[in-house]
Parts: sequence; C-alpha cells; structure tokens
Amino acid sequence: MTSLALIEAAAARLKGHARRTPLLSSPFLDEIAGRRLLVKAECLQHTGSFKFRGGWAALSALDPELRKRGVIAYSSGNHAQGVALAARAHGAPAVIVMPADAPKLKIDNTRALGAEVVLYDRAGGEDRDAVSAPLVESRGLTLIKPYDEPQVIAGQGTVGLEIAEQAAKDGITEADVLVCCGGGGLTSGIALALEDRAPKMRVRPAEPEGFDDVVRSQKAGTPQTNAAPSGSICDAILTPTPGDITWPILSRLCGTGITITDDEALHAMALAFQRLKIVVEPGGAAALAAALFHGDEIEGDAVIAVATGGNVDTEVFTQALTRFL
Amino acid sequence: MTSLALIEAAAARLKGHARRTPLLSSPFLDEIAGRRLLVKAECLQHTGSFKFRGGWAALSALDPELRKRGVIAYSSGNHAQGVALAARAHGAPAVIVMPADAPKLKIDNTRALGAEVVLYDRAGGEDRDAVSAPLVESRGLTLIKPYDEPQVIAGQGTVGLEIAEQAAKDGITEADVLVCCGGGGLTSGIALALEDRAPKMRVRPAEPEGFDDVVRSQKAGTPQTNAAPSGSICDAILTPTPGDITWPILSRLCGTGITITDDEALHAMALAFQRLKIVVEPGGAAALAAALFHGDEIEGDAVIAVATGGNVDTEVFTQALTRFL
Repeated sequence: MTSLALIEAAAARLKGHARRTPLLSSPFLDEIAGRRLLVKAECLQHTGSFKFRGGWAALSALDPELRKRGVIAYSSGNHAQGVALAARAHGAPAVIVMPADAPKLKIDNTRALGAEVVLYDRAGGEDRDAVSAPLVESRGLTLIKPYDEPQVIAGQGTVGLEIAEQAAKDGITEADVLVCCGGGGLTSGIALALEDRAPKMRVRPAEPEGFDDVVRSQKAGTPQTNAAPSGSICDAILTPTPGDITWPILSRLCGTGITITDDEALHAMALAFQRLKIVVEPGGAAALAAALFHGDEIEGDAVIAVATGGNVDTEVFTQALTRFL
Repeated sequence: MTSLALIEAAAARLKGHARRTPLLSSPFLDEIAGRRLLVKAECLQHTGSFKFRGGWAALSALDPELRKRGVIAYSSGNHAQGVALAARAHGAPAVIVMPADAPKLKIDNTRALGAEVVLYDRAGGEDRDAVSAPLVESRGLTLIKPYDEPQVIAGQGTVGLEIAEQAAKDGITEADVLVCCGGGGLTSGIALALEDRAPKMRVRPAEPEGFDDVVRSQKAGTPQTNAAPSGSICDAILTPTPGDITWPILSRLCGTGITITDDEALHAMALAFQRLKIVVEPGGAAALAAALFHGDEIEGDAVIAVATGGNVDTEVFTQALTRFL
C-alpha cells in the first residue's frame, strides 16, 4: 500500500531528476476566483506532465535485474512519455503499446524518447492485451500501470509534498487543493502526502461533465463507471472508473469533487496563457477551471489548483485563445 | 555603480517576493540546438517578465520618505507592470506615463495593478517629459528608469545568481549565456553576477536584425544607435542605444552578440510552447532563437538562454504556432 513513507522514499529517488515545479499566481486570477489562487504548474514537469514522476518512481524502485529486461506501458498520451523518458534515463528498454490512431505527434515523441512503440488497431477491435502478452512473456517485461500501482501513486504524491512546503512559504496552510482526476493516481498520492504534511488542506477531485465517475462514486459510496468511454475535450482524464487501489484512498481522504464543462476548461487554458504564461492542456486545466468558475463550491480564503499537463495540439490551444480572450 | 554586493543585497530584499523561476530543458530542443540547452523561464516571473525584479529592487532601496511620495516610470510595456506591482506591494503610489496608443490591455493591466496611468499623445508629438515634469515637481515623485539605474540593474542581476546556482546543480559551470538585450539592464546585471559566481560562463546579448545596436557597439568600441526606432516584432527590446551605465559593463564582460530574425523569434516561441509549455513574447524569445538557430556561432557543450518575458497578444502567439508547428 502507498503510505507517506513510500512517498518520501520516492521523493528521495526523484531528487535531482524530477523538476520541483513552481507554485504560480496572478492578482488577476485571484480576482476571478474570489480568493487567493495558487497554481502548481506540473505542465512544466519533464515530458510536459506529472506522469514523469510516477514513471521515475516505478522504474527506480524496480529490482535491477527486472529493470534490465525492460518495462511495458499502455498509453496514448502522457503516461507513455513519462515512462519512456524515465526508462531511457535508467538504461531500461521500454515498450509502449499505443493505439494506431493516436496522434502522430505523440507516437513520434514517444519513439524519440527512446521507447519501442507497438501499435494496435483499436478501431478494428484488436485487443492491446493480446498484443502485449507475448512481449511480456518472451522478454520478461514489467508492466507499469498508469495509476493502480503503489510506486506510481507514491511518485505522483511527491507533488503533494511540494505543495505543502511551497504553500507554507506563501503563508497558506489551509486550503482546498483541486486536482484534475482520471484514475486517481495523482489525486490519491497528493491526498496521502497532505494528510500528514498539511492536515488542514483538503484534496478535491476535478472532473469533466459526463466523466464524473469519482464524484458519483463519492455520492454512491461505491465505485461508479462513466456512461461513455470518450466525448470530452479533456482526453487525459477520461478514465472510466476509479482504481482498485486509488478508490479507497480517495474515498477516505478527499472532499467532494467538482465537475466542470469543456468550455470552462478551454477558458481556464486561455487565462493560464494570459496571466501565468503557461501552456495547459484541457484535461490539465480542469482543476484551474473549478477554482476560477466554481468558487461557490469552494471554502476558505485560498485555493490551490494543480495544472497537471500541457501536451495540447496547436488547434485546440488556438481555439481556446481566440474564443476566450 | 552596480557591483556584486549590490546584486546580493537586492537578492536579499527580493527573497520571498520575486519568484525563483525554473531552468527548463527538453531533449527535443537539445537536439535542435546541437548541445544541452537550459532555458531560464523569466516569463514566469510576477507580471510576466523579469522587470518585476528591477522594480522591486528600486522600490525597496528607496528612502521610506521618498517612497511614500511615490514613483514614476515611462513605459508602454513590461517595466510599467513591474514597477506598478512592486509599488503597490510597498504601499507606494505609482504614476506610469504611457502613450495613448499603447495596447489597451497593457494600459488596463497597469491600472489594475494599482498605478495611476497618465496618457500622452505620442502620435501627435506630445512630449512625455513635458507631461511628467509637473507631476514630479508637485508630488515629489522619484523616477524609476528602466535600465540605466544601479538598483534596477542589481535587481535584474539576481537572475544571474540563480542561473549560476541552478546550472551548477545540473552539472553545468561553463556555457554561453544568451540574454535578450534592449537597454542592457538585464544583460549587464547577469554579466556582473556571473563574473563572480560562474566565471567560466560568458554572457552574450541577443538582438533582432536591424536593432543590433549592442553588436555594432561592440564592433565599433563605442555606443552605436539603431537606424529606426521601431519595425521589429520584438517590441520589448527595441531600445535605440546601450545605456550610459550599462554600456561599460556590457563592453567589459560580454561576448559577441548574436542577431536573430523576427521569424526566428516566432519559431522559437512555437518551440517553447510545444516543448517547454511556456508562453514567450517575441522580444523574450530572441535568446532562445539564437540558441536554437545560431548554434554555429556558439561554443561549448551547453548553452543557457534567458526567456525574458511572456506578455504577447493572442494574435501574434497564434501566428507563431500556426506558422511554425
């Protein structure tokens, strides 16, 4: 199980490798939010998202013999790049299984980071497990899951250690901490870190409308599943249901989730461009959108939002700017 | 005169107020640059540019009685916002004299940061000194010059202290350090800091084609002036000639400047969006453009570029993305 000790150990292994991303702010955003707003800019992390932390934590925790054989991950996005770069830095072979219809840039990037990309025909109904099982068996690869894996959660939890330290320097020890939430690896990791390091902070998941499985799970008391697998612009966080490991943590430690619309995510991206000078992708802007446009659901004089990633296409980004600025 | 001691004193006063901006990198940019490339992201500074440092350094060094009466600055851009926010934080009134044809957003922002904005009719030939002289006299305001002022240079020089420390952590103690250069306040401040803290680093100014007064001054050995006052997209760094205080420092400490084109600046902005997830304005991208596209003029295994600001209009930014990605 992931614990504070596991997060602290991950932080020690990440030191000098992951970036300590800044906690940004703007008086203009404070005014919109109606309170002090601090933004943890994980879009500035290596590979453009927090996923590098979990990738590094998992790779560095592996038995050296296993690591030498290599790792495998399924992902069409940020987890792919995070694992690829972490594996390359550890001298470990990485196989990333990606749908053939994933954006070409993401496939190219993952290859350029040294990973062997294996494509499968998602649209044609090919099963990724069927593609990867023989590779795992023949090469002895270790699967790095995107969120339901204690070391990955521990790596993402290092964001929480940094938030506690950095916010305290800004005089803030009590706040809602909004986190863009897919499978819940980052959200549960931060919640575990803050439980000890900033007990007056409360983590709250932010999710897109129609993909609010965590909010509905919180209401029901048991894990719920989204009706559709896709259909929001927030592609990075459309996981169908909370994880087996993450759900008990989310359930125990998190405050009620906040649901945002795709337009609110785009609007938040535009304001992050204008006021913070950072590039945020739609799924990475969900928490910021909640802080800016759902102030009535938030308590206290300060709020912290994690901007989780910045891997966005030019078209989507320019659309956000031209529509909302 | 600005000295290392003045920079260190400014750093002590800025501590907890200015942001320690991160030193970013991307393997994709390393490949284009042909060497390790580190980018000091001053676009993430308060008000979106390094100018906040100089503003804070000047305000905090003022005699409290003088400060209470207030400060005045001439600027249509980044210096205006840096001084306005620093003055507000010190409880000092700030008057910013701006041309009436400056972008409305910049005028609005400066007002929103608490400054009294006095507009003058630049196009109609009105003289800003004639507008400001009676204000200075009647209210006892102190003028904060944008670069030819020792405390301002000291404030900007704190960027150099941070570069030396942060690069050393990345194992780099020897590199060309490219700095977007207008009047030379930032460039000379960094050069003074590195002279002591990283003597194997060499500062080199980056300027837009046609506005290369520093490069031509270096060649001539005496300060030269640009032929035209405007005409490059790099609006933030079109100062006509090196400053009286900055020139002797630039002349003594800097390596040869590098001249870039407007298209190279736009291309660098697009790559900073894609690979670093930061928003850089054209004048703030000159150094990065030099690092990426003028590698044959650079020596060594590593180069450092300062991304000085991110206050760019939506139209210019989207133009950069659509043309170069």
